[in-house]
Amino acid sequence: MPHRSPDLSLPVLQPNRRALSHASVLADHDAKEKCGVFGVWGRPDAVELSYLGLFAQQHRGQESAGIAVLNDEGIDSVVGMGLVSEVFGEREIDRLNKRPLRGAIGHNRYSTAGGSLACNTQPLVERFHGGQVAIAHNGNLINAALLREKFERQGHLFHTTSDTEVIIHLLASPTQQDLASVGEHEPMRATLRRLQGAFSLVFLFKDRIEAARDPWGWRPLVLGRMPSGEPVVASETVALHVAGAEFLREVEPGEVVRLSDAGIESDRFADPVERPAYCIFEHVYFASPASEVFGQNVQRVRESLGAKLAEEAPVEADWVVPMPDSGRSAANGFARASGLPYREAIVPNRYVGRTFIKPTPEQRRRAVRLKLNVISELVDGKRLVIVDDSIVRGTTTREKMRQIRAAGAKEIHLRISCPPIRHPCYFGVDFATRDQLIANARTVEEIREYLGVDSLAYLSLEGLLSCASHPNEHYCTACYSGDYRLDIDHPIAEGVVTEEQLRMFG
Amino acid sequence: MPHRSPDLSLPVLQPNRRALSHASVLADHDAKEKCGVFGVWGRPDAVELSYLGLFAQQHRGQESAGIAVLNDEGIDSVVGMGLVSEVFGEREIDRLNKRPLRGAIGHNRYSTAGGSLACNTQPLVERFHGGQVAIAHNGNLINAALLREKFERQGHLFHTTSDTEVIIHLLASPTQQDLASVGEHEPMRATLRRLQGAFSLVFLFKDRIEAARDPWGWRPLVLGRMPSGEPVVASETVALHVAGAEFLREVEPGEVVRLSDAGIESDRFADPVERPAYCIFEHVYFASPASEVFGQNVQRVRESLGAKLAEEAPVEADWVVPMPDSGRSAANGFARASGLPYREAIVPNRYVGRTFIKPTPEQRRRAVRLKLNVISELVDGKRLVIVDDSIVRGTTTREKMRQIRAAGAKEIHLRISCPPIRHPCYFGVDFATRDQLIANARTVEEIREYLGVDSLAYLSLEGLLSCASHPNEHYCTACYSGDYRLDIDHPIAEGVVTEEQLRMFG
Amino acid sequence: MPHRSPDLSLPVLQPNRRALSHASVLADHDAKEKCGVFGVWGRPDAVELSYLGLFAQQHRGQESAGIAVLNDEGIDSVVGMGLVSEVFGEREIDRLNKRPLRGAIGHNRYSTAGGSLACNTQPLVERFHGGQVAIAHNGNLINAALLREKFERQGHLFHTTSDTEVIIHLLASPTQQDLASVGEHEPMRATLRRLQGAFSLVFLFKDRIEAARDPWGWRPLVLGRMPSGEPVVASETVALHVAGAEFLREVEPGEVVRLSDAGIESDRFADPVERPAYCIFEHVYFASPASEVFGQNVQRVRESLGAKLAEEAPVEADWVVPMPDSGRSAANGFARASGLPYREAIVPNRYVGRTFIKPTPEQRRRAVRLKLNVISELVDGKRLVIVDDSIVRGTTTREKMRQIRAAGAKEIHLRISCPPIRHPCYFGVDFATRDQLIANARTVEEIREYLGVDSLAYLSLEGLLSCASHPNEHYCTACYSGDYRLDIDHPIAEGVVTEEQLRMFG
Amino acid sequence: MPHRSPDLSLPVLQPNRRALSHASVLADHDAKEKCGVFGVWGRPDAVELSYLGLFAQQHRGQESAGIAVLNDEGIDSVVGMGLVSEVFGEREIDRLNKRPLRGAIGHNRYSTAGGSLACNTQPLVERFHGGQVAIAHNGNLINAALLREKFERQGHLFHTTSDTEVIIHLLASPTQQDLASVGEHEPMRATLRRLQGAFSLVFLFKDRIEAARDPWGWRPLVLGRMPSGEPVVASETVALHVAGAEFLREVEPGEVVRLSDAGIESDRFADPVERPAYCIFEHVYFASPASEVFGQNVQRVRESLGAKLAEEAPVEADWVVPMPDSGRSAANGFARASGLPYREAIVPNRYVGRTFIKPTPEQRRRAVRLKLNVISELVDGKRLVIVDDSIVRGTTTREKMRQIRAAGAKEIHLRISCPPIRHPCYFGVDFATRDQLIANARTVEEIREYLGVDSLAYLSLEGLLSCASHPNEHYCTACYSGDYRLDIDHPIAEGVVTEEQLRMFG
Repeated sequence: MPHRSPDLSLPVLQPNRRALSHASVLADHDAKEKCGVFGVWGRPDAVELSYLGLFAQQHRGQESAGIAVLNDEGIDSVVGMGLVSEVFGEREIDRLNKRPLRGAIGHNRYSTAGGSLACNTQPLVERFHGGQVAIAHNGNLINAALLREKFERQGHLFHTTSDTEVIIHLLASPTQQDLASVGEHEPMRATLRRLQGAFSLVFLFKDRIEAARDPWGWRPLVLGRMPSGEPVVASETVALHVAGAEFLREVEPGEVVRLSDAGIESDRFADPVERPAYCIFEHVYFASPASEVFGQNVQRVRESLGAKLAEEAPVEADWVVPMPDSGRSAANGFARASGLPYREAIVPNRYVGRTFIKPTPEQRRRAVRLKLNVISELVDGKRLVIVDDSIVRGTTTREKMRQIRAAGAKEIHLRISCPPIRHPCYFGVDFATRDQLIANARTVEEIREYLGVDSLAYLSLEGLLSCASHPNEHYCTACYSGDYRLDIDHPIAEGVVTEEQLRMFG
Repeated sequence: MPHRSPDLSLPVLQPNRRALSHASVLADHDAKEKCGVFGVWGRPDAVELSYLGLFAQQHRGQESAGIAVLNDEGIDSVVGMGLVSEVFGEREIDRLNKRPLRGAIGHNRYSTAGGSLACNTQPLVERFHGGQVAIAHNGNLINAALLREKFERQGHLFHTTSDTEVIIHLLASPTQQDLASVGEHEPMRATLRRLQGAFSLVFLFKDRIEAARDPWGWRPLVLGRMPSGEPVVASETVALHVAGAEFLREVEPGEVVRLSDAGIESDRFADPVERPAYCIFEHVYFASPASEVFGQNVQRVRESLGAKLAEEAPVEADWVVPMPDSGRSAANGFARASGLPYREAIVPNRYVGRTFIKPTPEQRRRAVRLKLNVISELVDGKRLVIVDDSIVRGTTTREKMRQIRAAGAKEIHLRISCPPIRHPCYFGVDFATRDQLIANARTVEEIREYLGVDSLAYLSLEGLLSCASHPNEHYCTACYSGDYRLDIDHPIAEGVVTEEQLRMFG
Repeated sequence: MPHRSPDLSLPVLQPNRRALSHASVLADHDAKEKCGVFGVWGRPDAVELSYLGLFAQQHRGQESAGIAVLNDEGIDSVVGMGLVSEVFGEREIDRLNKRPLRGAIGHNRYSTAGGSLACNTQPLVERFHGGQVAIAHNGNLINAALLREKFERQGHLFHTTSDTEVIIHLLASPTQQDLASVGEHEPMRATLRRLQGAFSLVFLFKDRIEAARDPWGWRPLVLGRMPSGEPVVASETVALHVAGAEFLREVEPGEVVRLSDAGIESDRFADPVERPAYCIFEHVYFASPASEVFGQNVQRVRESLGAKLAEEAPVEADWVVPMPDSGRSAANGFARASGLPYREAIVPNRYVGRTFIKPTPEQRRRAVRLKLNVISELVDGKRLVIVDDSIVRGTTTREKMRQIRAAGAKEIHLRISCPPIRHPCYFGVDFATRDQLIANARTVEEIREYLGVDSLAYLSLEGLLSCASHPNEHYCTACYSGDYRLDIDHPIAEGVVTEEQLRMFG
Repeated sequence: MPHRSPDLSLPVLQPNRRALSHASVLADHDAKEKCGVFGVWGRPDAVELSYLGLFAQQHRGQESAGIAVLNDEGIDSVVGMGLVSEVFGEREIDRLNKRPLRGAIGHNRYSTAGGSLACNTQPLVERFHGGQVAIAHNGNLINAALLREKFERQGHLFHTTSDTEVIIHLLASPTQQDLASVGEHEPMRATLRRLQGAFSLVFLFKDRIEAARDPWGWRPLVLGRMPSGEPVVASETVALHVAGAEFLREVEPGEVVRLSDAGIESDRFADPVERPAYCIFEHVYFASPASEVFGQNVQRVRESLGAKLAEEAPVEADWVVPMPDSGRSAANGFARASGLPYREAIVPNRYVGRTFIKPTPEQRRRAVRLKLNVISELVDGKRLVIVDDSIVRGTTTREKMRQIRAAGAKEIHLRISCPPIRHPCYFGVDFATRDQLIANARTVEEIREYLGVDSLAYLSLEGLLSCASHPNEHYCTACYSGDYRLDIDHPIAEGVVTEEQLRMFG
């Protein structure tokens, strides 16, 4: 690993302030991203491996998928709307499989309601003075709009509305060389230092892949190695596993890693921060139960959440029923801790994909019935503990509760394995706007009434953090607590940070 | 309900003989079907309801899907290869939605390896002297080849290779009228009486739907009613539920039911047989856990199978792990009965659909990894009871066991919630050929060795039947026992049954 | 050529009667066909050759296209709606190209307004007692409905609404053998003798192709030979030419030809009729100008029609302008005969294909402008002779005349190179219904007024026939004269012909 | 029209030099474009009108098509590979038809062999500081590579390889404002003044369309007006006509025209040049015969070329035969001038579209046969004058001559209605590379021998120019003469022109 320059500072200001009127900054840019990234270097089967990796990370984004490859003619890519299996057929795979392949990167993108644009699919591929570059991004930059405005004023063109495009403009900027005076030797490090927010990035250049993780470590990013030694990078360990790679270690916060014929080389673009901001929601809901995230297996964390919940909010009941598939791990933990029998009384339809069903209320009722079948023989006349992982808007949960009641449940005790989600996330998870969050302006009792259940309990924030292995203050819990780690109201465009700024950082 | 003619006989000969060389009869006809049927009469939203019904029954067949509707211009249909959601987009739905709609029937068809032909998709729509008719079939006729040959000799044309097409030829036959002398008053009853084998049929005519179930009751077929009274028929109760219909009752073996503007009218085309042949495999694997089949909730039956298995084949272990998703119900039952902890240590990938992956050994390994992720944190160094519902060929199971071992399992005790499958099914389930069945010529110990597990136990046939509510002899268990209820070697083309034949039955 | 049985009679009754109320017979069967057929035996490139042949005959039908091939597994086919180039992509060609290929037949089908059904595309492929057969048909059977009704009464099923399907039912009929007593030795000859109307047929069997032409010879059908000797059959010589085959001769009226490994064998299923009924409209409009049809090059015939028209209906004008592309040949003949200059003042848009344009009046105006651009620099202030081949409904012609007038034409003298079309065709050309024919109930003067031209003249029937080389009475001119050669009101179902019937035949 | 600034200079250097090694500059950018542009402002049916306009200009480019529209949400676009009718189905039209529509522009792009990239389809849509802009370009910029390199050095990103993208970078450049000192008041004028080469451009902004034509007037660009007054711009008058618009006038060389709610406003970005460079090949081949181009109807010009050719290269023959469809106009002129009869002995297949045929020699022979059918009845034993418009590579012409000979022609006298094409075009017509041009290094006698004809004559350059109405020196004839009007070897990146440069111009 190259030497580390002694006092790299970080572009962070005024942490811990509540976001009040962020809309103006985010308005016309699609800032809501919840994605997966993947990269592999030096494998002739780079396309297949990327496909497998994206497949394994499909839970991180179902809106679009894309793979960019490097061969002798340069970078080519196929991106499209839909699931990995929908975007990539034999023709697409064949097109990418022009030998000799040197490397490939891939991207899954989350489906956000309405504002999804085909031009925003990733990897983005651009041509600039340094040649071609492809980029895949998981996270969200809070100073993207400011940087973009600056570039536009300088005459730069944009052809997407994504925050990711500014990263390439930064990278292509000739003024990067001027930064040498403040200690930066490479455009990449200078670029990364100017980004504020959450980012796990994978770049494909003509001779290498580079992978970087923001200094707070919001999103996971892991390194692996194929049995024959070639390096792999992915959002989650499950993608390494499916691609047949061994998990080496996490990319550290503030680290940029180069994957090339020389193997894996590490560099830092920023000092480690004192207080990382690992997204606790990755553990609660987002990551695969099969992955190791922030040093813990996700499935085991979720079982612990259920057990903790049983301890915090016990209830007399006939049996514990998981809300499939998201609540199963916690329900299992709850059942074991409480000693109540575990029964799968709600059966999901495995084949539900896209349907033509229109979003009328009657149709929504049908859609829920289509997805979940309540087994009345197991529910009728029973007192049930229903365990789920979280409630966002509440509308679907209410419909589910109605169906359980209609199947004859005598009592419904709903248990949620995390605290109420009261605040939007600006760091890579697209919940909803503040107003759409059911817990934003309602008490738990009000929510219980709205859902029509006999009792409702959420896991406490302390309970949640007690199941996580890092110190409590090393997690971002903003969606529960409103405690944002970066000032989302006043992001700064330029990341050349002053002493003062440094001091403000926690 | 119309009067029942007193002594309807049944076209059954020489039961209980083992099939030895059936290949010649079945050779060039795709006799292997495992399907779902649906029908609804008198609803303007018949297309949507059929779509929902097929969706809910998608587990009964993923090869093709089709809906036929009746409007003022006659019968129109859309059928296609693939899942319901793939075949039916907005355009297809719009095309079928030509008002006024009077009724609709639908069909899911199971994917059989290789021999699937687009011309065999259902519902079949034909024109004959009586006008148009559409038909959807779940089951398998063992005298189809003989009947077909007879028709071909008479100059009839066929345009599919399906056994279902002969049913319409029978129905169209003018000689049906000649059957009046032996007591048949309608072509439909005469037609049904000439069929040997398993059939749950739904017909769409210009003024009605007719639904019939073979006298042995091999496959389920149930009646329901929409809140506003319109009649619905489906393979499983889960389809009624998803369509918003109330479950009324099963169509009885030997019954034919007419759904029309007059409501539901019942008739019999054959006397009830003394020994029904309910397919026990519907309970073990095939039906939805949310359905009530042959009078029992499937999920509860499967939990009982697991509990019984724990009783028959106990083992000391750290925890019980279900093979998702098929083994979950039985694993839960096993865990509760044994007192061992239940842990979900194998995580399925919910998004696995069609992949471009080629069937090389290396690729198959990847495909299994893609579908199932073993959580090594939960497996490493542990003694595991793995519970699954059945083993057919064994190749995939072996690969799964390998991956569990690779994740560090100390001991693997595989428990299967039904007996070894040793015989092919000729009544509507497409397992494989006899030679492909791993249990066909191997002992349990040989299978254990092949799979590489520390112990292997199957549920006994007695154990299996003890969990089912009907008398033991009312189930078809041929795949386990070889005890075929119809002579699959010597089916008879003509079902005009003699007294003698009647006596041979039962 | 095998011996000819001495007095084969023909199933024809009451010729020369006007059709008055044919609608009832044709009502629900799509009897309007104007198609092309093709077949080649013994070539490994049979698919490519068929593709070329269909391409060359695309003018005979643009609604659908299909190719059926024979390989070791039997007959496979690809048929679809649209042009040959739209139906057949690489995937379709690859699918058909399963070696070893033995033969192939193909079909182009004409687009009829509205009633086109996907199930009617050809070649039809059916399975019957004799195995598989594929059939391609150009023409129209007037006793199809009667035959079909008879078959339906016998319990046969139909799955198209096409008249062609009855031919296979006839062929499959076991009663064909009974015909031996009246001198028929083969089902094929018996089948063909029972057909009334126009038919040029190509059959594909497992060991041969058979090609037959009705005894009146309504539609063309020609034999060719590849340089290496393999036999080819097609509707038109242009298809032979494009496929690289040499034109041998026409299939004679009443002849059935067998193409097999033994080369070309000829047989007759009917005696030659005294008065053939060659469709004169093939010369006027339908056939390719590059083809030799009924012994004459079509282009030369059309030039003669123009010259004859100039003689019959001369006019003083500045120049002769062809209506592209259909009127060009006749306009050239007109110009040379009249000595007037020939100017291409109307330019067609070569790229006009399907458009999304809706059939509103304003849109129709645009559609005509889209297809034809009048060059006002060549038209303004001029006296024009506009030459076209025919007028069917008149609506499009009127719009064209309007545009020529709008471009400044001083005088428009419209000359049509055939007589007014006053009667529907029941023998393979789909003009329109009687009521839609502008000339049906209008005088030429009334038509002139409707079209808004200064003068209008049609070629006389005598003039038309004078350009054709066969005796006048050897052409079917029913669309002009109403002189139908078969009784379209009373077709007979069974073609076993009596002496009496024979005598009635012209 | 706004005032004209008195001495606008033009960025032109060293005219009349031959291009020798241009490859290096053009190497990796697809500089070969032959396209059509269209725009309409203020019409609610702007999408339909654009569709009609592109349809009418389909001859100018068949590789891709696109339409960009302006509605209240900004600019949206649909672009795709293929013909207008292939790219735009109902769904695409519906998507663009989001009311209220304010304006639309469209583009047809020519198919160049191999190097076509989906990312190069137009209209290009970009976002910059001024908002969104869409652009459609017909022509070719010779300083695009230099400008692009400069921008890339400044850190700009490109996502196409098209020369058109630099125009938007220029437009977005904030340094445009600095140009005020040399008399430019608007970024648009400054941008246009920096472009060297051929360009007819249409821009869509949020409040207007702007249309500009290069100072030499290489490519046509015309203004029109709908009956209700809304302004339209198009490459050719035929597009105006088809859209229902009246032809007003050409956009003048050096003029930029603004189409907005205020109607049509004109401005100049450059003084008119003394010697325009109207592309003579538009008259010979490229433009529609129905259009008025550079003040003349194209069809009439082509007829004159044929007449002139008859005068320059008379021959005794039986008749004059046009090579369809390109040679028809000139053949007609030749026939009238020579007094020889005009016969259409070669018949094109109207339905030839894309075919799966592979480019083997045998396949090419078939492809030619597929496209053109020689009528041997009209050719056999005859002395023919074959008239065509031009010969580029010669391979297809040779195959055509072979087929005419094979059909029995006694003598073939080939007459070409323009001089030999010896030099590549760098101003918007994609002939081929220099080496591929058959006339590049061959004498007419050598070409005659290669083609296998009895005599060959080209129209002289003087003859060609004598048919055109502008002075001879106002046409670009570089493809015939090598007399390039701009220095294609040393284009300059920056168009701020010196006095010296001005003097060097024309």
